[in-house]
Amino acid sequence: MPKLDLDAIPQTNRTGYPAPFNEPVQGRWYRRLGPPGGLTHLRVSHVVLKPGAWSSQRHWHDAEDEFVVILSGEAELVDDSGVRLMRAGDCASFPAGEQNGHCLRNVSAADCVLIAVAAGDHDGSGGYSDIDMMFSGDGYFHKDGTPYASDRIR
Amino acid sequence: MPKLDLDAIPQTNRTGYPAPFNEPVQGRWYRRLGPPGGLTHLRVSHVVLKPGAWSSQRHWHDAEDEFVVILSGEAELVDDSGVRLMRAGDCASFPAGEQNGHCLRNVSAADCVLIAVAAGDHDGSGGYSDIDMMFSGDGYFHKDGTPYASDRIR
Repeated sequence: MPKLDLDAIPQTNRTGYPAPFNEPVQGRWYRRLGPPGGLTHLRVSHVVLKPGAWSSQRHWHDAEDEFVVILSGEAELVDDSGVRLMRAGDCASFPAGEQNGHCLRNVSAADCVLIAVAAGDHDGSGGYSDIDMMFSGDGYFHKDGTPYASDRIR
Repeated sequence: MPKLDLDAIPQTNRTGYPAPFNEPVQGRWYRRLGPPGGLTHLRVSHVVLKPGAWSSQRHWHDAEDEFVVILSGEAELVDDSGVRLMRAGDCASFPAGEQNGHCLRNVSAADCVLIAVAAGDHDGSGGYSDIDMMFSGDGYFHKDGTPYASDRIR
């Protein structure tokens, strides 16, 4: 049946980010909906950002589109142009290859629930705007190319 | 800026469905968010189903994944297995190649707002479960291959 039973899909706060970059995402609890939904072209995550949590470090993907829609609560969308408040029903898109790092930060006192979708080359590369890190299909690296001792989770 | 100004994006109820299959989707008002958002791998639609409107004829795609999340209101999800009610926050996925035709029907008295996303081969083929129609990158056809005199809108 196409309707997904969200409660039956495991929720995790795992991250491959090396310390200390993992700290802001400890309160990011997500479910991967693509595999239980049988999807092969689309990646879909149901994400709960607890108060204080970030969706990610501010990042971009070189060859993957991303899109988010807020279902409930609110979060700050941060990118090179500044900060915008996102509320239920608000949408944002992040085109592949646009080197404008983005993330959502829940600075409110309530959970923020959102859907994040992506398509394109998920094993490709990308970068982070605010920290000495970039990524490729092989993992995380310093900007001088030295690898971090941490596996990227996909 | 990644946050989309939905009010600035044109809304349309256009359809390429030949009559009378176009009738149930007259109250389907949608915005294509991919092009204004700069997306090339993801297709995203913001859809308002007026009371009585269907999201589509019951259909599937041979090579394109689809996913929907309800933002507000409610609709019936119809597929081969029957009917399920979808409310705000409910999600459904429709894998490429699964010949289980689906659509959403707003049988309530209020608008239903949803986000529909897709990735894969949008110019590919697919079929309809309940009517004498199928589609390809070239348009709409009867199941015996005779074309309809109507252009598919993409």
